[in-house]
Amino acid sequence: MEDHRIMEGLAGITSGQRALGALSTKERNTMLEHIANALEQQASRIFAANGRDLAQAEREGLAQPLYKRLVFDDKKLAAVCEGVRQVAALEDPIGRVRERRLLDDHLVLERIDVPIGVIGMIFESRPDALVQILSLCLKSGNAIVLKGGREALQTNRELIAVIREALGQFPVGSRWIVHMESREDVGILLGMDDIVDLLIPRGSNEFVRYIMEHTKIPVLGHADGLCALYIDDEADLDMAVAVAVDSKCQYPAVCNAVETLLVHASVANGFLPKFKEATTTWPVTIHGDGRTRDVIDCMAAVGSDWDTEYLDYEIAVKVVDSMEEAIEHIAQHGSGHTDAIVTGNEAKARKFLREVDSADVFWNCSTRFADGFRYGLGAEVGISTQKIHARGPVGLDGLVIGKWVLAGNGHIVDTYAKGKPFLHKELSIEGGSLFGEVDE
Amino acid sequence: MEDHRIMEGLAGITSGQRALGALSTKERNTMLEHIANALEQQASRIFAANGRDLAQAEREGLAQPLYKRLVFDDKKLAAVCEGVRQVAALEDPIGRVRERRLLDDHLVLERIDVPIGVIGMIFESRPDALVQILSLCLKSGNAIVLKGGREALQTNRELIAVIREALGQFPVGSRWIVHMESREDVGILLGMDDIVDLLIPRGSNEFVRYIMEHTKIPVLGHADGLCALYIDDEADLDMAVAVAVDSKCQYPAVCNAVETLLVHASVANGFLPKFKEATTTWPVTIHGDGRTRDVIDCMAAVGSDWDTEYLDYEIAVKVVDSMEEAIEHIAQHGSGHTDAIVTGNEAKARKFLREVDSADVFWNCSTRFADGFRYGLGAEVGISTQKIHARGPVGLDGLVIGKWVLAGNGHIVDTYAKGKPFLHKELSIEGGSLFGEVDE
Repeated sequence: MEDHRIMEGLAGITSGQRALGALSTKERNTMLEHIANALEQQASRIFAANGRDLAQAEREGLAQPLYKRLVFDDKKLAAVCEGVRQVAALEDPIGRVRERRLLDDHLVLERIDVPIGVIGMIFESRPDALVQILSLCLKSGNAIVLKGGREALQTNRELIAVIREALGQFPVGSRWIVHMESREDVGILLGMDDIVDLLIPRGSNEFVRYIMEHTKIPVLGHADGLCALYIDDEADLDMAVAVAVDSKCQYPAVCNAVETLLVHASVANGFLPKFKEATTTWPVTIHGDGRTRDVIDCMAAVGSDWDTEYLDYEIAVKVVDSMEEAIEHIAQHGSGHTDAIVTGNEAKARKFLREVDSADVFWNCSTRFADGFRYGLGAEVGISTQKIHARGPVGLDGLVIGKWVLAGNGHIVDTYAKGKPFLHKELSIEGGSLFGEVDE
Repeated sequence: MEDHRIMEGLAGITSGQRALGALSTKERNTMLEHIANALEQQASRIFAANGRDLAQAEREGLAQPLYKRLVFDDKKLAAVCEGVRQVAALEDPIGRVRERRLLDDHLVLERIDVPIGVIGMIFESRPDALVQILSLCLKSGNAIVLKGGREALQTNRELIAVIREALGQFPVGSRWIVHMESREDVGILLGMDDIVDLLIPRGSNEFVRYIMEHTKIPVLGHADGLCALYIDDEADLDMAVAVAVDSKCQYPAVCNAVETLLVHASVANGFLPKFKEATTTWPVTIHGDGRTRDVIDCMAAVGSDWDTEYLDYEIAVKVVDSMEEAIEHIAQHGSGHTDAIVTGNEAKARKFLREVDSADVFWNCSTRFADGFRYGLGAEVGISTQKIHARGPVGLDGLVIGKWVLAGNGHIVDTYAKGKPFLHKELSIEGGSLFGEVDE
């Protein structure tokens, strides 16, 4: 029965997406408003469903961090609804003209941003992630296939039911949403490379790595955030300590927290005792190499420490003889997420920024800035360590792709094959696109 | 021995790429000039090697189209060298600042275009494709792993040897090039998703489809070009005939040639006889549905005709009752490459441009315009029907990706977590990037 409904939903998802993508900015924003209002009005239903999930989780002894993420209360609801309304207020990511070129008289080429198509989302316990990604897809005209964690099934089901009801009054309805519920559905979703254009997984590193390794669908995200901070011999040591402490301790459980500290030998004596002293506020464990342990008292680092994303108050520290050694260490052990240098030498900083091949490379600031909201992207789809499509914090831009549109007056290629040259004159990208006003 | 050399080459390719990507625009352009000069000076060596391939091909009875593509003569050499010099003359795709934002006082964020990393190229017989893609990779600072067809092995090996010699005088040399020769290497390359960031296959549809189905590496390209042209009831019929003839007959063996003609019932009587008459210059076979055959004499279309990319003087013709039926037919049978409408009704054209979900959607012009050179992209990496990263004709832009660079003055996230607001002020993207002058 359930399977049948999913297959029906999938059969109609492409036409559902086409209908959604053809709506005006205003219509999509109105739908977002209706979703936020409905979630508020139907809060008790959602809380009741969440209560059933929480009771089940308690019976099964779900680990505390997962249990906390499963809770969907007043506070989470308010944050979710504020998020949906913020997405509604953002500039429309679709319909923007990125290039406009006059190929010849009356032959105009445009590259216009359009929805990617069908986004697949697989997420672990947090039900708020469901609403967040669903609203980003609605804003950007993309259909969505959702598969949440088993532990949040009742909550997710209720959220989807409330959203479907809220969208019922719009002609497009919720034909652009497919909700998968069973564990077997994950395998089905990962194999849907003919329907799903992009997968966005949300969850633990192991979970994301599993997704990446078991699908041919492009994945937007990152499995690891093994970030390094290099303290140069020309660093201001007070600044270095402040940046290192913030990068490690401000919130250690996240992907952009630093895991490895590389310290130039010339400043090891000056920096390391200060750093150790500054971290005493938190229960920080330092894993130092031999030369670090010559300066401060700490645990001995083993080989695996250089490849470990602790996600906790733990840090690996290595003394290096040059910036080049630091860059090489990052190339060998980093995950291409976020790496930073503290130095007063501009030329060295520029070399580091150029040569470290990571999504985010920073100079004299904390690795913790690697984040879509801090970057001013409005909404964050995720942080990608892929090297195509989108890299680093990804905003709504990551959910659109350029489509080439050409309007002529009976132009044929034979004319140009016979020698007529093209004009190839760049035109202003201001004004409406060849799509015209959608509301017409 | 050969395997050993390949493994050695692969081991050094990442550092080779880093060195290449760090070179100035001028250095990379000088290397391109040296390659073009060397190819001209060493022409006789290359022609001799090509002669050996051709002799072998004759012995093995290679099909004529493949044999023709294998030929590397004076004319091909001149075109290849002109191509290399054109690439040298193009604007540098790397180092461009795409976004610049002041997050707070003295905290500047930039998104800068950088090389993707390592490009894998697998191509069938044409040796000129080797030089073309290699020069695009050099221009964009990407390393390349090349695997050519067995039938062109001698030519490819000589081209690579000449290029390596030409690059010998530069410090970076050719450490960013790995040339694979054996059939077994294809499997190795397809499995190198930890090293290769993007694959560009060049060859037949079957070949590209095989590549796409046997790798986890993102593929830039298209397996099929099943393009449709819809003749609306409000079309200028003379224009419709000219566009249809050009789309089919100007060069039928290519991906952007039209394969399916969808004709509105109201103009079937007016259009079809004219179209048939206009195509008599070429040996065109028409596969028509029943309603087409009510108007003109032609072969009966069978179900598979709507899904066949003929790549020849053959076309499937269907009479439809509305533009919506045409759009639905394209959604069902098209390959998302290039589709076009001929109509005098602007509102209908705009709807078609919006709703047809293909890389290139045209109004009143030939499908044959879907091409990087005609679009004015300078150099064409390929035509993509993927829906992420790059879509349609792809220029050098498709070989770069944004990298986020943030420069501060000791800024830490804790300050903002405690309530300080971000400025998020957009800055002009003019001027040099935080990478600074590479030649400094």
